[in-house]
Amino acid sequence: MAGDGRGLGALLRPDSVAIVGASNDPGRLPGLPIRFLKEGGFKGAIWPVNPQRDLVQGLKSYPTVAVLRGAPDVAIIVVPLPLVQRAIEDCAAKGAKFALVFTTGFGETGAEGAQAQKALLDAAGAAGMRVLGPNCLGCFNSETGFYGTFAIALTKGLHTPGNVAVVSQSGAYGEQLSHLAKERGLGVRYFVSTGNEADINLGEVISWLADEPEIDVIVAYAEGTRRPAELVAALARAQAADKQVVFMKVGRSTAGAAAAASHTATLAGEDRVWDAVFRKYGVYRARTTEEQLDVAYAAARRKFPTGRRAAILSVSGGFGIQLSDAAAYNDLETPPLPADLAERLASLLPYGSIRNPLDASGQVVTHLDKLMTSLELLSGSPSFDAVIAFFGTVPLVDSMGAPLFEAVVGGAPSIADRLVVLSLVADEASVRGYERAGYLVFEEPYRAARAVSALAYLGAARRRTAEPVALPASADLPGDALSEFSAKALLAQFGVPVPPERLATSADEAAAAAQAIGFPVVMKICSPAIAHKTEIGGVLLSLASEAAVREGYDRLIERALAAGYDRGVVEGVIVAPMAARGIETILGAQNDPVFGPVVLFGLGGVHAEVFKDTVIRLAPITEQEAHEMIREVRSWPLLDGARGAEPADVDALAKALSGLSRFAAANADRVSTIDVNPFVVWPKGKGAAALDALVALTPATDHQAG
Amino acid sequence: MAGDGRGLGALLRPDSVAIVGASNDPGRLPGLPIRFLKEGGFKGAIWPVNPQRDLVQGLKSYPTVAVLRGAPDVAIIVVPLPLVQRAIEDCAAKGAKFALVFTTGFGETGAEGAQAQKALLDAAGAAGMRVLGPNCLGCFNSETGFYGTFAIALTKGLHTPGNVAVVSQSGAYGEQLSHLAKERGLGVRYFVSTGNEADINLGEVISWLADEPEIDVIVAYAEGTRRPAELVAALARAQAADKQVVFMKVGRSTAGAAAAASHTATLAGEDRVWDAVFRKYGVYRARTTEEQLDVAYAAARRKFPTGRRAAILSVSGGFGIQLSDAAAYNDLETPPLPADLAERLASLLPYGSIRNPLDASGQVVTHLDKLMTSLELLSGSPSFDAVIAFFGTVPLVDSMGAPLFEAVVGGAPSIADRLVVLSLVADEASVRGYERAGYLVFEEPYRAARAVSALAYLGAARRRTAEPVALPASADLPGDALSEFSAKALLAQFGVPVPPERLATSADEAAAAAQAIGFPVVMKICSPAIAHKTEIGGVLLSLASEAAVREGYDRLIERALAAGYDRGVVEGVIVAPMAARGIETILGAQNDPVFGPVVLFGLGGVHAEVFKDTVIRLAPITEQEAHEMIREVRSWPLLDGARGAEPADVDALAKALSGLSRFAAANADRVSTIDVNPFVVWPKGKGAAALDALVALTPATDHQAG
Repeated sequence: MAGDGRGLGALLRPDSVAIVGASNDPGRLPGLPIRFLKEGGFKGAIWPVNPQRDLVQGLKSYPTVAVLRGAPDVAIIVVPLPLVQRAIEDCAAKGAKFALVFTTGFGETGAEGAQAQKALLDAAGAAGMRVLGPNCLGCFNSETGFYGTFAIALTKGLHTPGNVAVVSQSGAYGEQLSHLAKERGLGVRYFVSTGNEADINLGEVISWLADEPEIDVIVAYAEGTRRPAELVAALARAQAADKQVVFMKVGRSTAGAAAAASHTATLAGEDRVWDAVFRKYGVYRARTTEEQLDVAYAAARRKFPTGRRAAILSVSGGFGIQLSDAAAYNDLETPPLPADLAERLASLLPYGSIRNPLDASGQVVTHLDKLMTSLELLSGSPSFDAVIAFFGTVPLVDSMGAPLFEAVVGGAPSIADRLVVLSLVADEASVRGYERAGYLVFEEPYRAARAVSALAYLGAARRRTAEPVALPASADLPGDALSEFSAKALLAQFGVPVPPERLATSADEAAAAAQAIGFPVVMKICSPAIAHKTEIGGVLLSLASEAAVREGYDRLIERALAAGYDRGVVEGVIVAPMAARGIETILGAQNDPVFGPVVLFGLGGVHAEVFKDTVIRLAPITEQEAHEMIREVRSWPLLDGARGAEPADVDALAKALSGLSRFAAANADRVSTIDVNPFVVWPKGKGAAALDALVALTPATDHQAG
Repeated sequence: MAGDGRGLGALLRPDSVAIVGASNDPGRLPGLPIRFLKEGGFKGAIWPVNPQRDLVQGLKSYPTVAVLRGAPDVAIIVVPLPLVQRAIEDCAAKGAKFALVFTTGFGETGAEGAQAQKALLDAAGAAGMRVLGPNCLGCFNSETGFYGTFAIALTKGLHTPGNVAVVSQSGAYGEQLSHLAKERGLGVRYFVSTGNEADINLGEVISWLADEPEIDVIVAYAEGTRRPAELVAALARAQAADKQVVFMKVGRSTAGAAAAASHTATLAGEDRVWDAVFRKYGVYRARTTEEQLDVAYAAARRKFPTGRRAAILSVSGGFGIQLSDAAAYNDLETPPLPADLAERLASLLPYGSIRNPLDASGQVVTHLDKLMTSLELLSGSPSFDAVIAFFGTVPLVDSMGAPLFEAVVGGAPSIADRLVVLSLVADEASVRGYERAGYLVFEEPYRAARAVSALAYLGAARRRTAEPVALPASADLPGDALSEFSAKALLAQFGVPVPPERLATSADEAAAAAQAIGFPVVMKICSPAIAHKTEIGGVLLSLASEAAVREGYDRLIERALAAGYDRGVVEGVIVAPMAARGIETILGAQNDPVFGPVVLFGLGGVHAEVFKDTVIRLAPITEQEAHEMIREVRSWPLLDGARGAEPADVDALAKALSGLSRFAAANADRVSTIDVNPFVVWPKGKGAAALDALVALTPATDHQAG
């Protein structure tokens, strides 16, 4: 019944709304929707259903759903729990398109509630009626005045339709976020709370919003998802439509994740896979409400810098320093002023300190033409992607605030297309005035810098062409586990280089293999059943003669038998060249229970194991993405020639990682984990190779690489 | 002239204030001090000095300083730059105790200004008059109404005397911070802006504040310090007096540090040495204004938890998850509910989700007795150090806000001594009401958790008894550089273990040494002139016979000569046992140009060099502090038995680190750097030893350990 959002038009732009269980008291929860609909000037039909009254809040009331004048686009169910099923059935029978169920006590409470939720959904589904909720706070469209919600914060004022939409699994959070957005001057056009997501879920709503021309920013909140594919498709659709999504996904901490698992029936999965999803689709992940609102506010202005180079201008040296720190905290660059610009500024600002941060000195507050010229010079310079200007409390000063406002707002047209962020303390009216002129305004330097950083992130995601990654045909995989040799042979087909090694099934073959490879060689027992070869002494190094190889073959087979393995599960012995020393890395893939195949990279040894210094991406990835990924681990300098070492062959590494990811993606139905450890990378131009590899097939085995 | 702050009483509690250059216009800067003094109800004498008027803002004006009715406690100088020197001389001649110089154009502008500043200071000093500024914004005492400032934000309202003081090198920042503090309901009793600190500096002001009984929290801002010892003494004094200092020190980033060096004539030094100073004295370092105000606000309530275990209560499951995340982001623990508590809560809250975070469910909003019982149970439990309760937008709801307020404020006495932080959105009056009842209130979950974390940090610092570290007598150091052997011998005296090695000055001695030590041995050329031994082939390993040792001796001497070293600078050859493998660490010390001796610790190899994974502390440190330091590096798990390794002998390591720090502190006047690299640590019980050591004496040499 779920869809790509195309069908939500009547939910968010209904012509008729029935409120089943409507109260006459506009102060009580069941009375609030009608109150808000009236206050919002909703032009459609409002049909209260309340058998005990003729009029509800001045509107004709209907005793039952059956006698309504028509099938409502939206039926809001605000009856107590025991009456919900009946109300749903009535609405379905009447032909309502959507039912909004605010009532709690369903899937979120346990098995019995889940049963009731299923019954509700079945009744609706049989009639083709869609359901929002249960346990939701409804939705609104502030343009049409359709407030299908009892979000009580609306008693503090309704919304102004802007280019922002809020969609939240949690009604309480969505309500709070919308309230704070309104206080911040953001125009929330649509609000949808999806609650238990029995039917309509976050992904479907985001998909619908992605096609709404008035919407630029989608502010989302989730604890998990039950329909990951739909969510991913929605984020991709939003990205393609150039809508920016600012997402808070909670449950990052262990305690939070445990609570999320308990609180929702949704799957949260491994938190950092969410990061990988967000990154792939250019979604900004916010950790705090403040951050989420700041970024939504900034993104709503639609000025996205093409880089991270910020020019800082202040009227007080100390604040320039603070802003430089704030820029650095937020990964912005503050490159020096180019010489010609520095020269012009020096002659303009004799009392200034001519650098980046530019301290224009307090003098410019009384020479506003100089201030504006400085601002124009900085914002017009191709050396910078954004300007952050600090005016502090100057706007509060009666004698200075007004002229400053006039000058800065007056000068806005000449810098209209540039990103100029003001850090200042002013009354709300002035702040709104600066904003209308095109500036972003933050009180706190840190938040100003964070917003620029977020815009740079979003801007980079916009410029990224979503290059489709060609997938290989799915491989012909055996029914059960793969040995090291088979795993490597398989991976080699998909671009993961392996050493020129051979599988010997007798001492003779081993000797011949060693001759062909050249001494010394390594020998390893080969069996899909033996994951931890070293534990049974299944690896022999530096075998330098034919006799040693022959003897080695027998010894390895004996050890496998001694360890209790059946001769039948031993494929033979791998004979491989001694690998030259290089940098040991780990390439991996796994099937995330929520989002499917992900690819992992890290350096071997302590880096991945002890320091957890690994990065993941959704598979598949291009070689370019692999290059980015490789550079993200903290231990990257070790590949890049730290301490005078030769830089490693990162091209070979990236190629292998991309190949592995494509293989994992193409065979996601069969491959549960891949662990190439170590994948040794030699110096630039010398290549790389998988020295060991484990491919675990579905059904998942307990195997882990040794 | 600087002091420990004892002499600032007349500055901050003056009986008489002269304003030299006072304007009759209360809207102009030179008119603002009188305006604020009058508005503040200042009871002392106010003496405008203005030769052009008989009355200034209704007060009798004096044509010159000389004719004032007495020597003012404070003379505020608001004349233009060319007239400042004369004004200072006049005030000094009159016997003024303090001159406040707001005028800019002094030390902050370059050499000429610095000259003028010196002249000003000389004139004042000759008469025993103290100077605040120049280039400062003055100071105020909101209790007595003494507003010796033209901080223009005061036109938006004067301050209420509470237990908070603001002291800032930057007038603009101090003004903004105080303004925002006031808006936040914080009572700023004292404000001092120190400007160029020609005389009175931040440290002296903090010292004075440390002795003020009404002050609990000192909010400070600095870009650097010219009197580090005074600052350190002040922070120690504040700590001893149980005042919490919340400090923003800017210039952390490279660009910020460069701007700070240019902006102020103060020394910033290495930024992380400031961290070490702050840590030592329990000072909280804030990165943003919001953080600084949040922490000051929290500290001002004086409820310091004794640990980091937070119980989370929410009326909405999603927010509980968000708070759990926020707690984790801020290094708080959220341990499970103890069984008995869980049982009681389960029977109390049948719809709740009984865990930590506790989701009491929206039901409790209409069962406030249950909410309060839950709050009491959690806050009374010895399993938690703090409770963070989330009410979201409930307070905004007309029908719920008032009963919630009544219940929560009414229940406050029973949890009065506990730290209970509320995360909610409410109007200002309600927030103040919750605060008066003893709660801390934050809108944002993240900020609530950060405040608890800050209080835990401050609380731990309060409980830490500043254990004095006994220093050894200063060592008898040579006039010039130390060889490895001498350096080790010296360090060994102070508790840094070294291998049982010998210095041989002939092949015979080398052979005898090797016999005594036992074969195989290591041999190293030993000279204070040769820092990079390996570069000249000055190290020989695994010498297994007397003959090899004899031959080795000659070879090393030859190599030193071949490398161009004079025989006279070669002390001989070190003969040492081959060290068993262990974990290589680095112990170091250096003399910070600002704060003096600091001690450094890190793991060797890539950890310190590539990943900059080192920690520093002000020297000296106790063994306990050394233990803490060792556990702070990211690579700590490698010492703690990661990947099945034996845990290292951390006791031996801590002992050596403490010893090294005490040596460095006792000889700070002579020792510029110490570099013990590698300091190898063997498994627990097996000890540790310095395998190489370099001690560079003052004057600093270019030596660095190889």
